[in-house]
Amino acid sequence: MRVYGDSISGNCLKVKWVAEHLGRAYSWIETDILKGESRTPEFLAMNPAGQVPLVVLEDGRPLAQSNAIILHLAEGSDLIPADAYDRARMLEWMFWEQYSHEPYVAVARFHVRYMGKAVADLEPRLVERGNAALQRLEDGLAGSAFLVGETATLADVALVAYTRMAHEGGFDLGRYPRTAAWVKRVEAALKIA
Amino acid sequence: MRVYGDSISGNCLKVKWVAEHLGRAYSWIETDILKGESRTPEFLAMNPAGQVPLVVLEDGRPLAQSNAIILHLAEGSDLIPADAYDRARMLEWMFWEQYSHEPYVAVARFHVRYMGKAVADLEPRLVERGNAALQRLEDGLAGSAFLVGETATLADVALVAYTRMAHEGGFDLGRYPRTAAWVKRVEAALKIA
Repeated sequence: MRVYGDSISGNCLKVKWVAEHLGRAYSWIETDILKGESRTPEFLAMNPAGQVPLVVLEDGRPLAQSNAIILHLAEGSDLIPADAYDRARMLEWMFWEQYSHEPYVAVARFHVRYMGKAVADLEPRLVERGNAALQRLEDGLAGSAFLVGETATLADVALVAYTRMAHEGGFDLGRYPRTAAWVKRVEAALKIA
Repeated sequence: MRVYGDSISGNCLKVKWVAEHLGRAYSWIETDILKGESRTPEFLAMNPAGQVPLVVLEDGRPLAQSNAIILHLAEGSDLIPADAYDRARMLEWMFWEQYSHEPYVAVARFHVRYMGKAVADLEPRLVERGNAALQRLEDGLAGSAFLVGETATLADVALVAYTRMAHEGGFDLGRYPRTAAWVKRVEAALKIA
């Protein structure tokens, strides 16, 4: 399996963590988004959406979208709950992540860390919605060690990816103590450095 | 099963269409987002994210996020491919929909139809990215009648929701003839009026 990913991207790291947790062999092909390497004709032939991560499976078939990739790789593993309702809650968090968390928490970080923007100059809407997402996570962690029950699932993989880097976008995880503790817990469960 | 939804929202209609396709009994509780009915204390107690659609299952447990809800309802049905790779491609389209289609195509329509904005005054980025999403859909439909193979799946449900209303945001489906034909095909398959 080949994984086309940019190491600065939390979305790409999700795939790496899940593959390693599952002991799945893969080769990582570093694809620099800042240099436009996901927009070359060769890359677009594999993924017309021009986005990383992209996986090319052993049989040559491509698959894109970080959360779709990790759902595929982890089928039947301990990262997906056996109970149908728990599985649905996991998916709820994963879709929420792409719609209500990544576009603010990850985008703020991208502007600050890679585009040279000062935290003070970030669009107020980004900061406000990023904090709303972190608060939602904080509330969601009130009753359990992980987002869906007492063991790590793909919901934690998806949400930890940019939450653990939130400070790079100017967010203060000190305001969200349950979330900060959960980040450490997920990092330990997934053996993330 | 209770479905809290706003009939003007494509995300909410997805749930209605899937429930009806599956012959699943439900009661629809109209929840007016323009009047803030998804932000009341009562609603937030059921869904802290303050978003519709929200489903309350027969056993009283809540579930949010349109795509997570329809994945849960449709488990084991003809709307989810049996093949693992096809299932993964379906999920790829569904995550892409929430990240790269809905935030442009649906948001443009919301501004024009419900906020009284003129199409000419829409943010250029919304229009550009909305058209890019429609073009991606057009390309994705080059080889098959539906997004994943020759029968309708949840990928079609998710993507048709706002594509069929794209003209209300000023998008011209005449530029995307395969997509326009596919909208009719999905509407027929799902018996959408």
